[in-house]
Parts: sequence; structure tokens; C-alpha cells
Amino acid sequence: MKILALNCGSSSIKYKLFDWTQQRTLGMGEVERVGITGSSICHQRRGHQDFVLEHDCPRHEVALKLILDTLVDEKVGIIKDLSEISAVGHRVVHGGEKFKSSVKITSEVLSAIKEVQDLAPLHNPPNIAGIEGAQAVLPQIPHIAVFDTAFHQTMPEHSYTYAVPYEWYKMYGVRRYGFHGTSHLYVSRRAAVLLNKPISKANLITMHIGNGVSLTAIEKGISVDTSMGLTPLEGAVMGTRSGDLDPGILLFMIEKEGFYAEQLDKILNKKSGLLGISGKFMDRRDIYKAAEAGDVRANLAIDIEAYRLKKYIGEYMAVLGRTDAIVFTAGAGEKNWKLRLKVLEGLEGLGIVVDKEKNRNTKSREVETDISAENSKVKILVIPTDEEKVFIEDVVAILEGRYKVHTEFSYSFEDPGYKRLS
Amino acid sequence: MKILALNCGSSSIKYKLFDWTQQRTLGMGEVERVGITGSSICHQRRGHQDFVLEHDCPRHEVALKLILDTLVDEKVGIIKDLSEISAVGHRVVHGGEKFKSSVKITSEVLSAIKEVQDLAPLHNPPNIAGIEGAQAVLPQIPHIAVFDTAFHQTMPEHSYTYAVPYEWYKMYGVRRYGFHGTSHLYVSRRAAVLLNKPISKANLITMHIGNGVSLTAIEKGISVDTSMGLTPLEGAVMGTRSGDLDPGILLFMIEKEGFYAEQLDKILNKKSGLLGISGKFMDRRDIYKAAEAGDVRANLAIDIEAYRLKKYIGEYMAVLGRTDAIVFTAGAGEKNWKLRLKVLEGLEGLGIVVDKEKNRNTKSREVETDISAENSKVKILVIPTDEEKVFIEDVVAILEGRYKVHTEFSYSFEDPGYKRLS
Repeated sequence: MKILALNCGSSSIKYKLFDWTQQRTLGMGEVERVGITGSSICHQRRGHQDFVLEHDCPRHEVALKLILDTLVDEKVGIIKDLSEISAVGHRVVHGGEKFKSSVKITSEVLSAIKEVQDLAPLHNPPNIAGIEGAQAVLPQIPHIAVFDTAFHQTMPEHSYTYAVPYEWYKMYGVRRYGFHGTSHLYVSRRAAVLLNKPISKANLITMHIGNGVSLTAIEKGISVDTSMGLTPLEGAVMGTRSGDLDPGILLFMIEKEGFYAEQLDKILNKKSGLLGISGKFMDRRDIYKAAEAGDVRANLAIDIEAYRLKKYIGEYMAVLGRTDAIVFTAGAGEKNWKLRLKVLEGLEGLGIVVDKEKNRNTKSREVETDISAENSKVKILVIPTDEEKVFIEDVVAILEGRYKVHTEFSYSFEDPGYKRLS
Repeated sequence: MKILALNCGSSSIKYKLFDWTQQRTLGMGEVERVGITGSSICHQRRGHQDFVLEHDCPRHEVALKLILDTLVDEKVGIIKDLSEISAVGHRVVHGGEKFKSSVKITSEVLSAIKEVQDLAPLHNPPNIAGIEGAQAVLPQIPHIAVFDTAFHQTMPEHSYTYAVPYEWYKMYGVRRYGFHGTSHLYVSRRAAVLLNKPISKANLITMHIGNGVSLTAIEKGISVDTSMGLTPLEGAVMGTRSGDLDPGILLFMIEKEGFYAEQLDKILNKKSGLLGISGKFMDRRDIYKAAEAGDVRANLAIDIEAYRLKKYIGEYMAVLGRTDAIVFTAGAGEKNWKLRLKVLEGLEGLGIVVDKEKNRNTKSREVETDISAENSKVKILVIPTDEEKVFIEDVVAILEGRYKVHTEFSYSFEDPGYKRLS
């Protein structure tokens, strides 16, 4: 059984063809500049050079056709016939309150996704275009939606409700939704395995630290709070996003600079965070290099990011009451030992003690490591994330009628004997 | 020595005449509707009925003259002659980065206060009008400014810097300032006395919970972080203010409703918080009554407020590393035992254990109480605040040349034998 995974952005489509029977990725790639001029596909296969082809893609449907043509291409293709594809999985960023789990896309489901598209105006419309385009070119097979928000739909009302006029929630759905759901799900279930606890008894703080950053408080295996909110702008400091902010600052800056909402949106999403503080860098590797060379603001960016992650750990420890482990994942979470050290230092009083040696040696995507010192009450784990694994398993389980909702589902990677394939 | 304390709002002036020698308040009152029609003064004296007089006050200076005339009035006055007043203390809301302590107002100081008035456009201009008006009618005596922000000027850069473009800080002073400084100062110094520790060794989380709410992390006696930010809108849920919010919500609502910044400002400051969630009440007494009668949204408002205060406690415990005590103060902090209980429940794992009996019995403004259980590692204190005490002592110490900055100053209430006068 082969599954095509699609991730449609406003001007790009990423794809991956996964062979469920062999449990491996056959190939993947990306079409860039969809809807702009100069579109091209870059197609990657194991053991071959990348194949790049320029091809005009004025619409998502054209780009999807280009992908399918490439998949079955005589020279560079990875399957013989499109009929080998059993299903298409679509990443959908925002599922609002309607979707608490991955789901097979019916016309009702598609309408419901369209109804919440205002909540993620940059992401959901291209997701929808991708679904419609793919359904048009592959009408005979099931299409399945996997949402970034579904994992967090278990949050209680007091943690998802903002202290704004309640009508905003009723009329427009203004509440906390949270993102990176498949990543938090994956690492929390893996953490339970490493802790040798059933997930239903594990209290965890999972920290997804990539270019986007979010933290989740997981109580008895389910998300009870998370740092991203209505949008992915809230929470920790990110590469280019501000994270938490006095809302008065937006009003103050509109007053000062006469910003329009779109301008402010762009500044807070694209010019803030580590880039805003440092003035130069959004990539932590550049920032740490500059800081070591004495750049004062690069140093400040590092300090602020770590300080605010540390605060979130305390916050979620208060939420959980008892914390079994904190989990670092995603790009910097997995690889940046200096960031982890800075976050963890000074938390000994809360029962969090890092083994500095182990921490320093942990920077691989390939292994899961316990970096806590022996006397640490709270375990500190570094677990490489695998969002795709969740994605593909949801799709297959839905195809096979074994899936209803993640809270009642056991993934293959929850097996103590599970070995991750690279 | 008699000190006149003034608190000038945009359309009101509150005053109090304090006798330093006798250590008591001689009288106090308020002029309302300054600059509007129908202004009036309400003047209160110990052991007398309130005196109310309608009197047109088109400007702050006229209102100040009305106050002074009332103070020396033959029938209702409390002093014989204005020459009995030794100094005027002015509450100034925002001191920006220029003022790290209370200060005698020279023309340079007044210019500097004017320079930062944009940071608090609702508060500082009337404060300035009050200073200029009072200097005009009492030109021969010293005028002293006491800032809400000064106590927090000890915060380190990583805690006051937002992850927004750094130029916003350089050009406009966008950073965390914090408010309620005199309250946090007072209760932290009192807490050190109760803990029998020098303030320079005390790590505290002080929670000022009135209509406005702010929390401060105090390390070795100084403010290292606080929940209010550039403006008093950030932080905990308040009576009518939203507190922390996904900044994306503002952009989303501008998109949805076409709000102007001023409208959004008003909604987030005046129609949000407990009022926004409950839809009806901003006063916690009303909310708790409604909740007991089964009002679902009143219950939700209570849950959200307590939940977010709990999160801040965890956050600041992570900041401090070791916490000696958490301190509840101001209206609800001092009197609302149900709120305190809800905040504290579930924090046992962090070493915070409340004595439920003591907590329930603590609702007086007159006593300081340790409500922690015997096995609580972190002490839990309820300390009625006394912002005026700090205010008056700063003024007198500046007059007497004994004061430079609060971090190097010992207040009378730090004496173990200090007894608060009602």
C-alpha cells in the first residue's frame, strides 16, 4: 500500500510517497512558485540525483498534475501507475473546533474545512486548493485530512478561553487552538515508552523548538495547554515570530507608526523573534556563532529565548502538578545543546537536573536520549520528532477502519520494540 | 511635617493630607469631573461627615485650588494655613527608563517626565497637569514624584526586552516596564520581616490582585520580572483587562470587525477580563455570587483567572530557582479566600501547601497572615498592601536628604517591631 502525503502552501506543494508495506519513503519533492511565474519541481529519490524541471504552474491543480506525472515518469518516476497509490493524505493547518482527529474527506468535511478557513487565512485556502486539485486528478481514491490542531482539542475550557469579550469566541471562534499537534503527539508517546509508563499516566512538557516553537502541557497523555494560540504567533520566541507580547504594544505601534493590520502582521510574523532582537539572524546557528564572536544583540536573543522557554517549563509544571519528563524535539530542540543547557540551568530547585556531559553529546536526529542527571526528579528527554509517522499511520488506520481519534489509538511507535527507520 | 499626596487622573484628582509627625492621615478626598461640567469635591475627615461641594473645574489647576481652599476652609478644613504643608508628593504612573526611584521635581525632571508621556498617554498627561498646577499654587515648597514603574527598573535586559524589532525599543522605548511598584515593594519588604530574612536574601512572588492585577518575581529583594508590560494591559486576567493574549487576535479582530486601534484599546482595557468572559460582572464579589447561583460563565471567569495566576506562580518559580514565599495582596488577594484556594490547589508538587482553615479565615485588611501548611516548603503569606506608606516615606526621606533609590533604602515598616496604624 502506497500513500501520497501532500502539504500545500500558498505558493508551494511538498509531497512524499510512502510505501506502507515496506515501511519506507520511496521519494519526495516540492513544487515551488505555484501561482507565480517560474515554477519548478525538485524531485528526490533514494540513491539518485535530484531531478529538477521548470514547468509553469499557474494553479495548484497544475502543480499536482506535474507531481503525478513525475511520480510515474519513465525515467525519474518511482511508481509505474497512479493506481498504485491507495490514498492521499493532506496536511491541513487549522481544523478549528470541528476536527478533533484526522478524518476522511467527504463533501461535508470539505465544507467544514472551508468554514474554518478564516482562522488560518494564509494556510487553509491553499490546503483546500490542494484537496480540490488532488481530488480532481485522483478522484477514485480516498483523501484524508490530518490537522495540526486536532491533538490540542482535548484542552479544557479554562485553558483555551481568552479573557476577551465572549462573543468573539461565539461569533468568530476566537480561542486557543495550538499547532504542531502531530509532533507533540509523536514525542509524547515515545516519551511514555522511554519512561516505561502507559501514555495514559504520563505527565509531560513537550517542547517543539524549530523555526516555529511551541510547548505543550500533556496530562495523562492528552494536551491540556499549549503555547500557540488562535494563531501560531503566540508563545515562545521563534525565528521570526514575536511570541508572547503585551497586546498594548500593537496598539502603541499603530499609534506611533500608523501601521495597517497587514503590516503589523508581517512585522510580528516575519521580522520579529530572534531576527527582531538580533537584527540580523533568524537561524540559531548564525546567532550562536555571532554571539561567540561577541555580538551583543545575538547574545541577548539567545538569553531571551532560553529565559522564556524556562518560564514556560515552570508554567506547565504548575499546570501539571506532577511532571514526569520534559521533552526537547525538532531542529534546535534535538541538536542545540547550548540552548537546552541555558533553558535548564537554574531549574534544579524544581527537580530538573541536567547531565551536562550527556546533554553536550546529544545532537543527533537518529537517537533518543535521556539527558537527565541521576538525581533529577523530572526526566529530561531529547526525542527526534517524526510528524510524518503520525500522519501516515492516521491515513492507513482510517483506510483500514481502525481509527477514530488519537486519544483511543495506539501507534506502532508505542511498541517498546519499535525501531525508527532512517 | 505635613505632606499632601496627589493622584491626578484625566478627569479627577485624589488627595490626602498626611501628618508625618503624628503618623496619621488628617483628611482626604477627591475632585471629580475635572475638565467636564458638573465638577465637585468630596472631602473626608476623621469623625466628621463627608463634605461635598459642587464647583466648576475646567482645568486641573482650578481643581487644585479648590482642594487647597477646602483644606484651609474655616468650617471643614484640616489645617489653618497652607504654609503647614511641607511638600507635595505626586503619583506619576510612567517613569520610563529615566526614573529608577522617587525624585524631587526640578525643571529637568519635569521635562524628562514629559518626554516619556507617550508611554502612558492616558495617565502621564494628567499627572503632568497636576504637577504644573500644584507648582503654580504652591510654588514655595518641594514637589516630589513617585513612579509606579520605578521599582521594576532593576529587571535584567532579557526579562524586559520583547522579541520585536529592536528599533522599537530604541526609537519608542517599547519594553516591559511593570506597574504597581510601590505595592510590590511594600509587601516584599514586609514579607522579608515575616520570614525573618534580610530583604537582600528573600526570593518572593508578590501577587497584587485588585481590579488591576500584577505579579512580580523578586530575587534577593529586587524586581527581576513582572507581569505587566509596556502598558498595564499585559499579564493576569483583570476586572476589565484581557491580560495575556495571542497578538494575532488583535490582527484577526481588526480584519473581522474593522476596528480602529482606539476601539480595540477600549475593548481590551474596559470590556475584557472578568467582564468579557462573564459578560456581566467585573467585580469578583458579583462573579462569585453568580457562580454560586449556577452562572456558567461566571464560573468560567473564576476558573480562568485562578488558572492563569497559577501558571504565573510556576513561571516565576522557574525564574527564581528558589522561592521563599508567595505573597497575596490588594483587594481580592487580601480578602477572597476562594480565589486564593483555587490558585493554590494542585501546586503541592512544587512545595506549595496551603492551610485551608487559615486561608478561609483570612479576609481582613488589618492583619498579616501566614496561610501555609506546616509542611509547605514555600511560605504563603497574605499581606495587606500600603502603597501610601511607601509614597509618604519616599517623600519625607527625599525632603530630609536620606533617599537615593529604594534598593538602598530601609523603610520604617522593615523594622520587626513595626505596627501598622489603621
